[in-house]
Amino acid sequence: MEKPEHHIFVCASFRAGGDPKGTCHKKGSTDFLPYIENEILDRGLDAQVTSTGCMKACDYGPVMVIHPQGTWYGPVESEEAIDDILDALEDGEVATDYLIE
Amino acid sequence: MEKPEHHIFVCASFRAGGDPKGTCHKKGSTDFLPYIENEILDRGLDAQVTSTGCMKACDYGPVMVIHPQGTWYGPVESEEAIDDILDALEDGEVATDYLIE
Repeated sequence: MEKPEHHIFVCASFRAGGDPKGTCHKKGSTDFLPYIENEILDRGLDAQVTSTGCMKACDYGPVMVIHPQGTWYGPVESEEAIDDILDALEDGEVATDYLIE
Repeated sequence: MEKPEHHIFVCASFRAGGDPKGTCHKKGSTDFLPYIENEILDRGLDAQVTSTGCMKACDYGPVMVIHPQGTWYGPVESEEAIDDILDALEDGEVATDYLIE
């Protein structure tokens, strides 16, 4: 099976039962999933987007984690933020404005 | 913020709305979350477990992905499988019996 070069995780605050109730979801994290998917296609990135349950970084939400780089970003709450993060990913860099340190 | 050395993603088949409906969830992937959490503590691993929406590897479900190693495992449907995978993680190796290649 082909695995993606970049794996982008977007917190959707799913609880164990599935209800999306936490900070990231309330702040609209899942609204950006289609935008991220489209940007990946437009840029020709070898990347997969996966929504997640709570990643325990609620103070920084909406949270996005990119592996294998291991970069944690937040708050990611605009298309501009996503553009900056994906620009950095393409350049092998880190989008410092949104980095959770 | 402290980030985990190992980030373990367990597919819970969450749909966009949050309903856990897909293959991994039907095969009991989320039943093992407490076991994995306990094993991490017992072993003293610097690891975080995160449940996810569909990771598009349904044929291999229940699916577990470990980053930054980038190892995709499945089907992971027993405590024995989890033990083998975490043993390998501790040893810097790969649990070949469950590896999705």
